[in-house]
Amino acid sequence: MIGFSQDSASGWIRSYEIDQLKPQIESAHELLHSGKGPGSAFTGWMKLPDSLDIHELERIHRAADRIRAQSDILIVIGIGGSYLGARAAIDMLTPTFSDLLPREKRSAPHIVFAGNHLSADYLYDLLETIKGQRISVNVISKSGTTTEPAIAFRILKQWMEEQYGREEAQRRIYVTTDKSRGALRKLAVQEQYETFVVPDDVGGRYSVLTPVGLLPIAVAGIDIDAMLDGARDGMHHWQNPDPDDNPCYRYAACRNVLLRKGYQIEVMVQYEPSMQYLTEWWKQLFGESEGKDGRGLFPAGVANTTDLHSMGQYIQDGQRILFETVLSVEESKHTIVVPADDDNGDGLNYLAERSLHEINEKAARGTILAHVAGGVPNLRLTVPERTPYWFGQLVCFFELACAISGYLLAVNPFDQPGVEAYKDNMYALLGKPGYEQKKAELEALLAERDS
Amino acid sequence: MIGFSQDSASGWIRSYEIDQLKPQIESAHELLHSGKGPGSAFTGWMKLPDSLDIHELERIHRAADRIRAQSDILIVIGIGGSYLGARAAIDMLTPTFSDLLPREKRSAPHIVFAGNHLSADYLYDLLETIKGQRISVNVISKSGTTTEPAIAFRILKQWMEEQYGREEAQRRIYVTTDKSRGALRKLAVQEQYETFVVPDDVGGRYSVLTPVGLLPIAVAGIDIDAMLDGARDGMHHWQNPDPDDNPCYRYAACRNVLLRKGYQIEVMVQYEPSMQYLTEWWKQLFGESEGKDGRGLFPAGVANTTDLHSMGQYIQDGQRILFETVLSVEESKHTIVVPADDDNGDGLNYLAERSLHEINEKAARGTILAHVAGGVPNLRLTVPERTPYWFGQLVCFFELACAISGYLLAVNPFDQPGVEAYKDNMYALLGKPGYEQKKAELEALLAERDS
Repeated sequence: MIGFSQDSASGWIRSYEIDQLKPQIESAHELLHSGKGPGSAFTGWMKLPDSLDIHELERIHRAADRIRAQSDILIVIGIGGSYLGARAAIDMLTPTFSDLLPREKRSAPHIVFAGNHLSADYLYDLLETIKGQRISVNVISKSGTTTEPAIAFRILKQWMEEQYGREEAQRRIYVTTDKSRGALRKLAVQEQYETFVVPDDVGGRYSVLTPVGLLPIAVAGIDIDAMLDGARDGMHHWQNPDPDDNPCYRYAACRNVLLRKGYQIEVMVQYEPSMQYLTEWWKQLFGESEGKDGRGLFPAGVANTTDLHSMGQYIQDGQRILFETVLSVEESKHTIVVPADDDNGDGLNYLAERSLHEINEKAARGTILAHVAGGVPNLRLTVPERTPYWFGQLVCFFELACAISGYLLAVNPFDQPGVEAYKDNMYALLGKPGYEQKKAELEALLAERDS
Repeated sequence: MIGFSQDSASGWIRSYEIDQLKPQIESAHELLHSGKGPGSAFTGWMKLPDSLDIHELERIHRAADRIRAQSDILIVIGIGGSYLGARAAIDMLTPTFSDLLPREKRSAPHIVFAGNHLSADYLYDLLETIKGQRISVNVISKSGTTTEPAIAFRILKQWMEEQYGREEAQRRIYVTTDKSRGALRKLAVQEQYETFVVPDDVGGRYSVLTPVGLLPIAVAGIDIDAMLDGARDGMHHWQNPDPDDNPCYRYAACRNVLLRKGYQIEVMVQYEPSMQYLTEWWKQLFGESEGKDGRGLFPAGVANTTDLHSMGQYIQDGQRILFETVLSVEESKHTIVVPADDDNGDGLNYLAERSLHEINEKAARGTILAHVAGGVPNLRLTVPERTPYWFGQLVCFFELACAISGYLLAVNPFDQPGVEAYKDNMYALLGKPGYEQKKAELEALLAERDS
């Protein structure tokens, strides 16, 4: 199972502090499992591995096989939770440089993301790149009207229909959307696209183990069944409300203790470059779940050891407002050994014949000691291997910890009211029908500021 | 020139607050230009565009041409400042998906980075990827003994000698190192590698416009002369110590005012995905320069609009401990227009025939208004275009602002004493000769924590 240790935060977290949180944790656990807490309409992710329709899962496998056979590039269109989970899994679980291999050596299409921002140049570059390539699209949007993915899809759909004709485009477009409502569902019915369901009771940032994440992940050739097994085992394992027996809840408790005593930033620390987007996924999960009502730890990430030569100085010796959570992978997939060198000009012969993974692990241990000595509490998570099973279990660990942590913080960990503010302003400034009043107000405000 | 505006922070920064800083800014300016401030031995970056040896620059061009002609992949080995600047420039200034194009459509080799961490799997994946490809290496290290790049270079050098024979490997290895001392210089002399100089008076994070950054950037096909022109023009332009007439110093002043009134995090906001690594470079520059003696703003970054669906909720409505600096690019390189659609099922026809870049800009304006209303001061930087010239000017802007800001904060913005702490612990735990005493101490400490 995933390991958790607070040994390197022992100077900051007393056992009686955890003890005093126990009734609150029990109450959070009760709220979550009874379905009576705030946001409980969006706790479907808890039942996910088991509630996933077996026929839908089977269709995902078949669609993934078809996409793999018919495509050089799969374009995944989605924003926020509709892309971060898939990207995290694909980056973590496929070989680092697979995009650089010639086609005959690759086992899966390139997977690129679009519709997650509004950059004209990015979309232009994408359109240039797909010329002469065999393309499929997986568009992921609950409503079908979110501006970023809707624009990208409108453009790519027209491109595909011109390129392939309507009928062939229909075979190359896969839609993940609401089960019955919304613009994208309607279009999918009309065009007979193959569709997958975004469940009603799962919010975007908790959706990686629904078809939202599973289809692109399966296209990448990753074993999604093992991933679901990992999540299932985690969910069954972390049922005990006592943080002494539940590392997931203990992680939630520790970060709340540290927040309550003034630490404002949690830095997620990785030592595998392939796990950078897992950190991005984690930032969305915790930032969006807890960052509300003036509350919440600010989530940040570093990728070591490279960032020890960047943010490392700040962490060692800047303002003492942060703690770290170090996520270590116990076994590497491959063994690389430092070779001996007769000259030893670089002075590395003391490492000769030793494994790089061991050296990485020693760097992590040494860094924790240094940062603790510098006044930074360190929590530590360990995952046995970088595999689909453990990815699934990590997802479950963080989702459950986030829900409990949010309830400890007294926020609704399943809503995101603050995301609407920018959208409303953007709609108004763009002149969307119905926003005329707001447009006038905002333009007056802008004129005043610019004057 | 690069524009700066504090109009969206006017509720937080009073004009008299800037006025009161003026004597301090003048003193910081004087310290920097007189060479009498802390760390003044490392202010060579200020004279860089002009002090760069014309023959060295000519050699960079020729080496880049040779590398381009003889390589499918250039591996750049370096950590911290020895890779972030080049990566930022290459990501920002080359087409987004160029790695996905078949060889005949690419104008430059793939450029990948190594020796910036200790992941065994990353290096394994790299060794698998380069099989059968034509490789060149640019190894960048002042000393040649920094653990991460030294290990990667030892392994790749042996690989190349086996693959190509020693003589051909010599033609494929390019060394950027100290002008006369160190392990890498010694090796380069012995092996007759072509070498370039890391100047003595420029620290890693200020080194992108030295051969450290310029060689890999030139290999990517980017106009490094235009880049140097941009930096030169910036440096000549921002000479006035009065922040009323110097946007670079005004940026430094504003962030110090906000820090002094309790804001602890500066979030760099981009709207172009290709500029994500510029943010990483900026994080190193400011984090490592200011994060010391218990001081400094914690630098973080978001890539919008995608992160509006991730960190956006926190920024809008979490703890009020942060401000934003929004870096906007005024003109896109390419024009993408939202096409009309007869059905209008996605409701986007109000945007039909409008440019995506304009929509992106409106999203940025709307977001600033939303975040200001949510209690987040917003500073704004504008750069006319995403070109080498403006990249160079941005580098100069941030480096100069960082130096002045650091002096306003009363730190040495040119050292990084905190980076040594992890290195020493790592050496000790790995059993490096000379660290026996420290090894015993640390292992006792670890045994105690783990018990």
